[in-house]
Amino acid sequence: MANQEDDFKKVISHAKEYGYVFQSSEIYDGLSAVYDYGQNGAELKKNIREYWWRAMVQLNDNIVGIDSAIFMHPTIWKASGHVDAFNDPLIDNKDSKKRYRADVLIEDYCAKIEAKIDKEVAKAAKRFGDAFNKEEFLATNPRVVGYQEKINTILSRMAKSLEEEDLADVKALIEELEIACPLSGSKNWTDVKQFNLMFGTKLGASADSAMDLYLRPETAQGIFVNFSNVQKTGRMKIPFGIAQTGKAFRNEIVARQFIFRMREFEQMEMQFFIKPGTQKEWYEHWKETRLRWHLSLGMGEDNYRFHDHEKLAHYADAAADIEFKFPFGFKELEGIHSRTDFDLSSHEEFSGKKLQYFDHEENKSYVPYVLETSIGLDRMFLAVFSNSLKEEELENGTIRTVLKLPAVLAPTKAAVLPLLKKDGLPELAHEIVNELKWDYNVIYDEKDAVGRRYRRQDANGTPFCITVDHQSLEDNTVTIRHRDTMEQQRVSVDKVKEIIASEVDMKHWLSKI
Amino acid sequence: MANQEDDFKKVISHAKEYGYVFQSSEIYDGLSAVYDYGQNGAELKKNIREYWWRAMVQLNDNIVGIDSAIFMHPTIWKASGHVDAFNDPLIDNKDSKKRYRADVLIEDYCAKIEAKIDKEVAKAAKRFGDAFNKEEFLATNPRVVGYQEKINTILSRMAKSLEEEDLADVKALIEELEIACPLSGSKNWTDVKQFNLMFGTKLGASADSAMDLYLRPETAQGIFVNFSNVQKTGRMKIPFGIAQTGKAFRNEIVARQFIFRMREFEQMEMQFFIKPGTQKEWYEHWKETRLRWHLSLGMGEDNYRFHDHEKLAHYADAAADIEFKFPFGFKELEGIHSRTDFDLSSHEEFSGKKLQYFDHEENKSYVPYVLETSIGLDRMFLAVFSNSLKEEELENGTIRTVLKLPAVLAPTKAAVLPLLKKDGLPELAHEIVNELKWDYNVIYDEKDAVGRRYRRQDANGTPFCITVDHQSLEDNTVTIRHRDTMEQQRVSVDKVKEIIASEVDMKHWLSKI
Repeated sequence: MANQEDDFKKVISHAKEYGYVFQSSEIYDGLSAVYDYGQNGAELKKNIREYWWRAMVQLNDNIVGIDSAIFMHPTIWKASGHVDAFNDPLIDNKDSKKRYRADVLIEDYCAKIEAKIDKEVAKAAKRFGDAFNKEEFLATNPRVVGYQEKINTILSRMAKSLEEEDLADVKALIEELEIACPLSGSKNWTDVKQFNLMFGTKLGASADSAMDLYLRPETAQGIFVNFSNVQKTGRMKIPFGIAQTGKAFRNEIVARQFIFRMREFEQMEMQFFIKPGTQKEWYEHWKETRLRWHLSLGMGEDNYRFHDHEKLAHYADAAADIEFKFPFGFKELEGIHSRTDFDLSSHEEFSGKKLQYFDHEENKSYVPYVLETSIGLDRMFLAVFSNSLKEEELENGTIRTVLKLPAVLAPTKAAVLPLLKKDGLPELAHEIVNELKWDYNVIYDEKDAVGRRYRRQDANGTPFCITVDHQSLEDNTVTIRHRDTMEQQRVSVDKVKEIIASEVDMKHWLSKI
Repeated sequence: MANQEDDFKKVISHAKEYGYVFQSSEIYDGLSAVYDYGQNGAELKKNIREYWWRAMVQLNDNIVGIDSAIFMHPTIWKASGHVDAFNDPLIDNKDSKKRYRADVLIEDYCAKIEAKIDKEVAKAAKRFGDAFNKEEFLATNPRVVGYQEKINTILSRMAKSLEEEDLADVKALIEELEIACPLSGSKNWTDVKQFNLMFGTKLGASADSAMDLYLRPETAQGIFVNFSNVQKTGRMKIPFGIAQTGKAFRNEIVARQFIFRMREFEQMEMQFFIKPGTQKEWYEHWKETRLRWHLSLGMGEDNYRFHDHEKLAHYADAAADIEFKFPFGFKELEGIHSRTDFDLSSHEEFSGKKLQYFDHEENKSYVPYVLETSIGLDRMFLAVFSNSLKEEELENGTIRTVLKLPAVLAPTKAAVLPLLKKDGLPELAHEIVNELKWDYNVIYDEKDAVGRRYRRQDANGTPFCITVDHQSLEDNTVTIRHRDTMEQQRVSVDKVKEIIASEVDMKHWLSKI
């Protein structure tokens, strides 16, 4: 655990040091749970977005993209359920004045019991050695069974109370468990209240004429309300999809884990409109297709797993997460949801407009069902970045820090380095930069010894270093050094673009999906 | 004028009909001055953004991009001057309850006098025919001279009152001129009040612990507050630039002219950090460079002009607009501003952090000066779209509606059309689509007669139609039809990608800048 935390700290500090992610408003001591992407981060984020867009929109002739506004008519959030149900149960400690999510306090309490179980397991494993059977131990050891029963009782009572909106019982549970404020140690709690997670603002000039707006908490509704416009003007036939990327906002009480959970974040969502009754097959299709997209980046099959939801949201008849192994464990990276006709039907009801599709084959109209794929762009950024950061011990015993980003996503594709700052080497290096820059982000670097420049580009995530030396002036060849293997090859200058293209061009990567 | 209005209406309805721009939340009867981009609009907008990014960031080795959050620390807007000075003077009519910008009411009044001048000019021109000298007439005709003097008196008094924040005199002026509410005809006005244009929201859970935030009214400040982080981690040397694209928000009272002035809009801004004293040369450099970027799109030199500001904002020592000829006349498309050290110095003062640069050549530290280029992405979209929409009379007397988008920006690069829906033509057409789609957005269309499909793609803005016919099956050739000339050429299937590339690839267009 200490190791995980250390690793995560290294990720965060490397992200800052190399211009990937800065704390927002840092010179004003920051703004909690908001981050800015620096000169490398902006390019990595842009490349991830483009990799998703090409795979989803450009390569699928039945999926189109849109770009809907953050501001939407407020009734949309009534129809979607967000005004009534997009809440967190909050409780304040009267002494510390600190506010908590009531459910998180209870879950943290259970996690402590869970830790006791883990301790018993570790002790027993040590005692019994190879003869230890974990399953059997968990099922039979009286102390452990007692702990587990206690956890189950607490969590099921909490789930029931939250579902029935019996917030008094949630408070009673906190009091019965004698949960204390982690800050003050006090058990002096207020009542539990529901708090809506949407940010509000006012459109218009005066308080009396103003319209209450929300900042969208998801991009999906912008797709649903444009369903008919896109279907008709785009002459789309079911099954078809509408995709978009864009900002969404959630007023999280406890935002944490760097860019994993932010108050302002970016989503990449696709709503696939289908014939009612076909949702099972499309659900399987999109689960597999999206996983293949992830795997195409080559970040390791073992880092992904599906997590099927047992408890479903009000709009869904099936849901699964693609989880990724972040520095703090397996967590949701993408969701695949079978949303039924909940959203379109609800918008029909609230807007009074028909949102149906006339199916020529069936010769009838219906409200389509929807299969959704929804991924957080910032989470994907964190997955890629944290998984790529490696410390490697070299043969000479020194440590090399290298950011092994999938080359297709790397902010800078190549650095061009004159071995020396004289003898015409800088001039030739600049010529190569000027040739490559029309197709790729490339940089020129002449400062420090070449070995040090290699290390700098390793840490920066640049897949190729192209070194110009005296031999280059004679035979028009350069050295290409590969970031991951540190191998160097001598090639003709004319071949450089082709070599880069073969490893970084998006189409090669996309064809592996 | 009637003609201009008709043309603009055609632009708006074509934008909707072909999936470029939809009214936001249309099924809920819309949200004023907010728009969504449809399946074609999202691609056009994305292509404009990319054309800017490549020209500014990828091709300039001393300019890098960032992506800062919409949420920023609220003190930033004190430092920038937005909290105190980003206001509109508003006035309410007590009878109609309608709210107006006081300055716009007065300007509209003057516009009516201006219309009288135009009428006199037209009358005189008719009377005197070829002998009419407009300049002389304007300078000597007593009635016209009187009108012009009246306008000058009104506008200079208004400008003085607004500058001195003498809002009582602005109201007095409205009353003296007997300006009536356009809706009710009533002259019963409230006092004039300043209204801040920033949207507010609250971060955090409860009213007492919440932090008042603003939605950023410009992206520029996100660059200024990250100046040191980018300069240090990116090892940037002056002169260098930081660029970004992103949403900004302004609570405009009178938002109008379609996507020209929206409450939510997207900016593409670049801040160029320079040595104090060099701002004049860099101002000229960026004026010229940005104009060349616009001209590279081939939308006609006559459609652009510079407008140098006489009255400068508090932060500027020089400013000019690049104006474009929109359907409603020449209006600002991009601004080039010499912002001095106002922003960085102000952030130094408010944050207490040094925002300086150590210049090794000069061997001293200083707060850099800033040259800004700032363009509205939505305005650029409107410029490109409106300028491209043409109605052409063909030889047979029919009218062809064609969207002559610069090919580099077109949402779909090619449509592949089987002449008939049989004999293996669709199969070959699909093969061509499957080959091209790795590099370009292409679509397959088999519905309706081929002539009708050509017209559909013309209206859609697709630069190329590739038609597969029976001869294609024999000799592996297809017809390529060019949107703008309607010329058709017979080419080998193997040559298709090369022909498309030569006309649509960004690098060819960028090399013309």
